[in-house]
Parts: sequence; C-alpha cells; structure tokens
Amino acid sequence: MPQGVPASVPDDGLTTRQRRNQPVLAVHTGDGKGKSTAAFGMAMRAWNAGLRVAVFQFVKSAKWKVGEESALLALGQCHIDTGAGGPVEWHKMGQGWSWLRANTEHADDHAGAARAGWAEIARRLDAGEHDFYVLDEFTYPLDWGWVDTDEVIETLARRPGRQHVVITGRRAPQALVGAADLVTEMRKIAHPMDAGRKGQKGIEW
Amino acid sequence: MPQGVPASVPDDGLTTRQRRNQPVLAVHTGDGKGKSTAAFGMAMRAWNAGLRVAVFQFVKSAKWKVGEESALLALGQCHIDTGAGGPVEWHKMGQGWSWLRANTEHADDHAGAARAGWAEIARRLDAGEHDFYVLDEFTYPLDWGWVDTDEVIETLARRPGRQHVVITGRRAPQALVGAADLVTEMRKIAHPMDAGRKGQKGIEW
Repeated sequence: MPQGVPASVPDDGLTTRQRRNQPVLAVHTGDGKGKSTAAFGMAMRAWNAGLRVAVFQFVKSAKWKVGEESALLALGQCHIDTGAGGPVEWHKMGQGWSWLRANTEHADDHAGAARAGWAEIARRLDAGEHDFYVLDEFTYPLDWGWVDTDEVIETLARRPGRQHVVITGRRAPQALVGAADLVTEMRKIAHPMDAGRKGQKGIEW
Repeated sequence: MPQGVPASVPDDGLTTRQRRNQPVLAVHTGDGKGKSTAAFGMAMRAWNAGLRVAVFQFVKSAKWKVGEESALLALGQCHIDTGAGGPVEWHKMGQGWSWLRANTEHADDHAGAARAGWAEIARRLDAGEHDFYVLDEFTYPLDWGWVDTDEVIETLARRPGRQHVVITGRRAPQALVGAADLVTEMRKIAHPMDAGRKGQKGIEW
C-alpha cells in the first residue's frame, strides 16, 4: 500500500495540490495477465471517486464480453439510480463502434475501425468529455502502425484539464512508454493455460 | 485477450469440463503497481459470474479505504437489491477484524491480528463459505513469519469445491509461488511518485 510519501519533491515550482491534480497517463504492458483487469480495477476506483469513466476496447469481436463490462455498467446504473459514483460508458470496436450509425461501416477493416476509434477518443480528449479513459488493447493498433503513435502522444500531451488515461496491451511502443507517468509490466510467471486448463467464467472473463 | 486455447492438453485423465472447473490459486507479486487492483478487478468479474466474493485486507489501519471497497460493496448491494451478480463481503484487519466481538482484541498486536485473520479464512475455506477470496497483502504476514506458509499451502491444497483464491503482495514466499496455478509479477517501470507527485483520489485509492 503506497504511503503517499514521494521519494523526492521536484523543483518544478508547483504546489502539492497542483502536482496532486496532474492528469496521469498509465500504461500496462508485458506478456502477463492483469493488464486489462488492473485497468478495470482502476476504473472501479475512479467510479467511486465520482469520475466520468469511459472504456474503449480495441477488440475484434463486439460479442466478446468480459465480466468487468457488466460490473462497471452496473456501477454506472447505480450512479443513475442513486447518484453514487460517476457515470460509466463502455465502447467496443468489434465490427464498428457503438457511436457509429452503421455497424457495418468498418466491417472487415480493422485498421479503419481502429483509426475511427482513436479519432473519436481524440475528439473527446480535446473536448474534455471524460475524467478517466481506459484504452484497452490499444497498443496493438499502435504496434501494427494502424494508428500513429506520435499523433497519440501529441494528443495526450495537449489534453486539457485532468483527464486520466490508461492504455493496455502487449508491446507498448517505446515512445508511448517514455511519455507515460506510470508504466507497469505484467510478467507471466505461471499460468493455468500452460497446464492445459481452459478458461472459466468468473476467472478468465 | 486469451483465446482459450491451452498450449497443451495434459495427460491427467480429466475431461475439459473437470479441468475447467478446477479452483484457481493466483498470486500477484512484485514491486510494481496493480497487484491489488488486478485482484479487485478479478473480484468484479467474479461478482458478475454470480460468485460469492470475500475480500480480506491485511492492512494496518481499518480506516484506510480504497475505492474498490466502496465499489465492490455497491455491487454487493446491487446483488441484494436486484439479484444481479453475487454477494460481496469486505473485511479489514486494522486493529481487529470486523467479525471479532472486541475490536481491541489484537490492538497493537499485528502478528496476532494476522494469525486471527488467517484462522478465520482457513475455517471458511474448509467450510466452502465463498467462491472467490482475495487475500490482499497477505504475503507480508507470511514473509514476516507471522503466519506459517506451509500451513497456508496445506489448507489451500485441501480446500473443497471450487473456491478461487487470489493472494497479493510483495515478496511472495517461493513455496507459495510454487503452489499457485497463476503467478504474475508486477514490475515497476515508471511511477509518478518518483517524480515527486503525491497520490490522488480516483487514481491511487
């Protein structure tokens, strides 16, 4: 548990409050488990703090649904019903994003779908629409060159206000790692899949 | 995203269903962030699958409260109100566990409090009271010798049914790592604390 005591106090002319209120860019990378799960756990924490949470999943199938989606949307509903926490949005790339009129717009064009997803996220970042963004598995379109890493870094660098962003996935580009405030590498030490087990509901999804 | 395809099928005489239904012991260790957060994210997923979730936090202060506690308890309330997901319990060591009559029973005796916590967890494991346990920061009492690692491993090995257990914390004992089905090491690559930032609500807790 962090004790909240910084290792050193920087000579940046900022007050503790100003420093405390800086937006965080976090990257969860590596071959191990827990990259997305830790990001969704952070989203749960952000919800509790009343932050406006938005998750963007850069996954192939819109049908694939992790338990965290239902749980975070349940928390979002709890916000609507009781005012607790903050609002929650969950968007999936699949064959097209939920905000697109035609779900077939990027059918079989994953690169186009990924670019459309990033364009919308960039628009929202510029507008300050959310307080906490999860860009789940976003490293892959970056790694594959579908979305330009430099443009992502520039957009993140100029984002107004205090918008926190967590990016997950293997092979995070080095430039993105360099731009992040918090980078964690999840390393696999042992995994039941190695022993021939299949995934199970409540554990794997 | 795991595709659910095992690297190999073991020659253990079990059917896929039997293998799928095996209880998982996971350990999140290492010096990086995300060990507890990923465990709480898994708890959120377990909640969604209708599993009976119980969190046991081996932390010094019962006053310290992470956002995940409120969020998971909100999901537990959602279960009570609407039947969605599963029930959620959250217990903290602090100066004494919530199930103890006298909160002062282990005042200033952290070793005794940790042992009392483990004794109760062992009782619940033997009785099959929950489906998904988070033993948060439990590696410390093991590392310090307050709770016997071999006894923990024996109790876990004989636990009936399909009770999943996630243990978090730095310096996980090697014997525990060896007994686990899934071990992830969270490695710190960069952290805002290093740049003199203090933690902030919604991000650090």
